[in-house]
Amino acid sequence: MTALIPGEIAPPARLLMGPGPISAYPSVLRAMGAPLVGQYDPFMTATMAETQELYRQVWSTANEATLLVDGTSRAGIEAAMVSLIRPGERVLVPVFGRFGHLLAEVAERAMAEVHTIETAWGQVFAPSVIEEAIRRVKPAMLAIVQGDTSTTMNQPLAELGEICAKHGVLFYTDATASLGGNPFEADAWGLDAATAGLQKCLGGPSGSSPITLSERAVEVITSRKRIEAGIRDEDDPDAADFVRSNYFDLGMILDYWGPRRLNHHTEATSMLYAARECARLILAEGREAVIARHQLAGRAMLAGVVAMGLEVFGDVAHKMSNVVAVEIPEGVPGDAARAAMLTDYGIEIGTSFGPLHGRVWRIGTMGYNARRDAVLTTLAALESTLGRFGFAVAPGAGVAAASEILGQA
Amino acid sequence: MTALIPGEIAPPARLLMGPGPISAYPSVLRAMGAPLVGQYDPFMTATMAETQELYRQVWSTANEATLLVDGTSRAGIEAAMVSLIRPGERVLVPVFGRFGHLLAEVAERAMAEVHTIETAWGQVFAPSVIEEAIRRVKPAMLAIVQGDTSTTMNQPLAELGEICAKHGVLFYTDATASLGGNPFEADAWGLDAATAGLQKCLGGPSGSSPITLSERAVEVITSRKRIEAGIRDEDDPDAADFVRSNYFDLGMILDYWGPRRLNHHTEATSMLYAARECARLILAEGREAVIARHQLAGRAMLAGVVAMGLEVFGDVAHKMSNVVAVEIPEGVPGDAARAAMLTDYGIEIGTSFGPLHGRVWRIGTMGYNARRDAVLTTLAALESTLGRFGFAVAPGAGVAAASEILGQA
Repeated sequence: MTALIPGEIAPPARLLMGPGPISAYPSVLRAMGAPLVGQYDPFMTATMAETQELYRQVWSTANEATLLVDGTSRAGIEAAMVSLIRPGERVLVPVFGRFGHLLAEVAERAMAEVHTIETAWGQVFAPSVIEEAIRRVKPAMLAIVQGDTSTTMNQPLAELGEICAKHGVLFYTDATASLGGNPFEADAWGLDAATAGLQKCLGGPSGSSPITLSERAVEVITSRKRIEAGIRDEDDPDAADFVRSNYFDLGMILDYWGPRRLNHHTEATSMLYAARECARLILAEGREAVIARHQLAGRAMLAGVVAMGLEVFGDVAHKMSNVVAVEIPEGVPGDAARAAMLTDYGIEIGTSFGPLHGRVWRIGTMGYNARRDAVLTTLAALESTLGRFGFAVAPGAGVAAASEILGQA
Repeated sequence: MTALIPGEIAPPARLLMGPGPISAYPSVLRAMGAPLVGQYDPFMTATMAETQELYRQVWSTANEATLLVDGTSRAGIEAAMVSLIRPGERVLVPVFGRFGHLLAEVAERAMAEVHTIETAWGQVFAPSVIEEAIRRVKPAMLAIVQGDTSTTMNQPLAELGEICAKHGVLFYTDATASLGGNPFEADAWGLDAATAGLQKCLGGPSGSSPITLSERAVEVITSRKRIEAGIRDEDDPDAADFVRSNYFDLGMILDYWGPRRLNHHTEATSMLYAARECARLILAEGREAVIARHQLAGRAMLAGVVAMGLEVFGDVAHKMSNVVAVEIPEGVPGDAARAAMLTDYGIEIGTSFGPLHGRVWRIGTMGYNARRDAVLTTLAALESTLGRFGFAVAPGAGVAAASEILGQA
């Protein structure tokens, strides 16, 4: 039997305007084509150190412990939680969308005693509500999503660090959906741990998770340190309450990234190159300029869909810059319309999870695609698609409204 | 303060002839530069299914549950162990090098009761020794490395499946270092689980872990199934002894790769492209032809180093095809000589771990680099380097011996 061998990969042309993953910056794709080097090559260790420094600037932190976890964004979440939470410790998770449920789920699997508070989807929490829950629960950690793509909401974090410090609580946030396109200040906001992924505003592929850890977080991790058998020296630490994962043990991952360069995993070199390029692009354009570009594109997309007569879901004042959820109009088949956008225009938009599945479309403007032509093309294609499915739109209204915000090219 | 922004990544030219990672095939690097698509794009799901089918052929299996774990090779190890081992269950790990210790370590962190047997580094186990230990320990799982790069040994697996089946033991192997360059027969050898990485004989970058699971393994995983909060329907399973990791819960990962396409992580698209290309290249050249090419290159390298007067470490009859460990000659500073190979010739060779650190060099001939010019260039550079450090080699002896095996080009 001769099996049929396919050819080299040849993806169709796509403009990814959903909630992520989004189209990567061309130079990020190019970076992954760069030749490999050995894991202890001076170029490799220098590139790791350089990437750490670039991400310190992206996170706005002086944290020495700023690095990558080799996996998708939820690998970073699990690494932070399993390394920072001792079994039986209490974790408070304010849930305002699907990814809050994920944090609770990961904490539960890490054998934490998980307490959640919930708010309606489309809303965020007032700091006082979180503080009240902290007083009641007395958690070891507050774990909260910054931007929950399932609802598009952006939870304000600026006041939470002080509250956590006052109550002796570790403060962790998942900034996967928000980092790069919305303000983020790891040090000024008093964060102990923050994790992300490349596939949203950072403009890269999924598969590498930037993470930053405060000195306090590193102290917790160090107190649980155990170096694995096979490479452990006699005087190396071997804590009794060691982390119940080898792959996600940040103590060992820090030793791999740190001056000791102790072997753990083999760093995913091509993903390192990608992560480096994502950060490099942000800093070359300017961190504030990239956030402003996301805000402009987001405002334009919002104005466009509103001008087309679509209803926007949730508290728009607390929306992330980089994604908007619009109610699917009565009578329009949501999935068929999304499929038509993909087939006829090569444009991907998303639906959502749980209570919002089939009720909203999520339209993103992230990373490379937070740009004028991507916004206007999407609005034009959406107008055409809505018309095809019987929802009449004033011709050109969406593009005109967005153009007004974007200004002339 | 204006921070200095570095330029695009520009790695130095390297011929990676160590124990891995090794230089990737050019078309694998090219594949990662292909544009991204959305995670539920028909092209994406078709590419995932196609990649599964390609890896069934690489593993030589009919297992439906053949897929990728998004992380480095040890992510695949941990996913297999944490999903298949219930806390408190016994796991038997025969250790013949550093990566046996790793399996024991990962099993211990997965809260197994771990039993090890050891043999001297440089040796492998007779099946009877393993069966005796199985009779004594009565484990739920036998976990054994196929090729342990730390010693270069290749543990014969062909007889172990029958032994495991007889005693009702799950049979798992880590084939990271061996798959693609040495015979591997998942079904014929009765394996329940096997995991690998791309960065050895498969000729890709680290960061994606191919895995295959027998029906029996899938039954164990299914019996522990719990779908995470936030996307769980009322009638979805929610087992009490759920897997103590979200990221590595193969039950959920199988639902993501399977027909239900239930969201878990966001598949690392560029690494998927790379993994697909690694498998595609093997099948296009022919699985047996690729193994034969590794065997030829390995024999040539072995003959070359022997002809140069170097001692080879371990039981050569059980050496993997793709790597050889040579004793560093008395008086030659091992690390300085390796550094000179890198600086003067751009060639990387490795040292080893634990008792072999600083005692041997490990020279690999894997994937793209299992080829005539890579072998001969390495031998010529090694001869020159040894001479520089005072170890006299008969001029041209290594290259001549290797050439004899390789034949004329």
